[in-house]
Amino acid sequence: MDITLEQAEAVSTAAKQKAKEIGVPMNIAVVDAGANLKAFHRMDNAWLGSVDIAVKKAKTARFFDMPTGEIGKLSQPGGSLYNIEVSNGGLISFPGGIPIKNANGEIVGAIGVSGGSVEQDHEVATAGLAAFK
Amino acid sequence: MDITLEQAEAVSTAAKQKAKEIGVPMNIAVVDAGANLKAFHRMDNAWLGSVDIAVKKAKTARFFDMPTGEIGKLSQPGGSLYNIEVSNGGLISFPGGIPIKNANGEIVGAIGVSGGSVEQDHEVATAGLAAFK
Amino acid sequence: MDITLEQAEAVSTAAKQKAKEIGVPMNIAVVDAGANLKAFHRMDNAWLGSVDIAVKKAKTARFFDMPTGEIGKLSQPGGSLYNIEVSNGGLISFPGGIPIKNANGEIVGAIGVSGGSVEQDHEVATAGLAAFK
Amino acid sequence: MDITLEQAEAVSTAAKQKAKEIGVPMNIAVVDAGANLKAFHRMDNAWLGSVDIAVKKAKTARFFDMPTGEIGKLSQPGGSLYNIEVSNGGLISFPGGIPIKNANGEIVGAIGVSGGSVEQDHEVATAGLAAFK
Repeated sequence: MDITLEQAEAVSTAAKQKAKEIGVPMNIAVVDAGANLKAFHRMDNAWLGSVDIAVKKAKTARFFDMPTGEIGKLSQPGGSLYNIEVSNGGLISFPGGIPIKNANGEIVGAIGVSGGSVEQDHEVATAGLAAFK
Repeated sequence: MDITLEQAEAVSTAAKQKAKEIGVPMNIAVVDAGANLKAFHRMDNAWLGSVDIAVKKAKTARFFDMPTGEIGKLSQPGGSLYNIEVSNGGLISFPGGIPIKNANGEIVGAIGVSGGSVEQDHEVATAGLAAFK
Repeated sequence: MDITLEQAEAVSTAAKQKAKEIGVPMNIAVVDAGANLKAFHRMDNAWLGSVDIAVKKAKTARFFDMPTGEIGKLSQPGGSLYNIEVSNGGLISFPGGIPIKNANGEIVGAIGVSGGSVEQDHEVATAGLAAFK
Repeated sequence: MDITLEQAEAVSTAAKQKAKEIGVPMNIAVVDAGANLKAFHRMDNAWLGSVDIAVKKAKTARFFDMPTGEIGKLSQPGGSLYNIEVSNGGLISFPGGIPIKNANGEIVGAIGVSGGSVEQDHEVATAGLAAFK
């Protein structure tokens, strides 16, 4: 099972709506089950440097099938995955990337959001996720 | 002047509509005046390898302010721009990328399309362009 | 709005003057609003390794619209942006990069300086910034 | 012997003057004897994609101590240096890059110009070269 473009756009649109509500312009990326880019939107005035980060968050979340922030807990100095961020052309291991699961619990893709604080990024990603069906 | 996300989405939507009409699933990328990604959509069943090509076509069109196919005419063996494709982290010099101009003739971004024959890619990019305003 | 070459050269010249005053040969880069290189100068005897760092500082400052040192405060082990430096082909998150704003407060580019201590780099970048008009 | 920043700026200024005369906005790069970037200027409205090409032309000219166009004669299909362009992170083998020699005939750097036709690029690079002393 894989996410469709229609589903990815619904997720992006909901994330964008949440970003507008909290007043933070965001970069929003959605990847499919193969971790390949499916949809991307950069809101006006969103950080240029967050294009790459949003995409990397979505990929990272699908690469390891967990929210990106979970990886960051293990990649700190002395941690079991120390500096894993240098792999795969660059991972992002702080919050803002979340896997997308279908009704059967299968992972069909992931969303990555970047443009605000990591709490805001995660909040917007979560809002996007809630629109998946 | 720079393209807005609303404008980029109108361009993408029109391109997607044309792709559906001709029955070819496409990757559609839009970059802004600084050649930074603004919007991207991969239609269901579109080639995975065309994600990067669509983005590179859009960037190439903005990098040199001309349709990508024009560069390909000059980059052939014996041509004046032979192997220019190795620059800028990789250019795509066949058709499918076109600059986007505003009413004053200023370039505000570019569209890049990949997924079919180069004629189809160019046709879909042109249809997207027509929706810009 | 975008920085002009004349403005970028005025910024570079002022930075160079400050570097001479403090006796530290510097690499000085200026990027435009799209984070694309506009001007660069390497003073005689300045570090070769600082060519890339100066450019990355300027880009990083524009990528996130803040002085590069601000990012470094958040990217430390345990910080909210830990290892963000692996994104965007490499970020520099210590001081020496500063966004350039016009009279309306719009960001039109950024300056990046590298060649001395980070305090010296920041001092020289600040002197460059003061010459923008 | 190595080119100084003062010399590099004199070369750049002369090239810029010629570019203005012929009415083509150019990207102008100067590298030193070590093929490391020394000075760079992008004139207003010059192609964004020519930032990288100007730098690569200057490097290519110093890498092989000959005008870039000479390499292009040998890198064609069937030629002795076929596809050499993929080396060194990307070479540019069409005209616009020229080594800079001092009065003793020693190579002290190179200039690379991009933004117009290859004839224009070469003309502007030659004008820059003439200002070296």
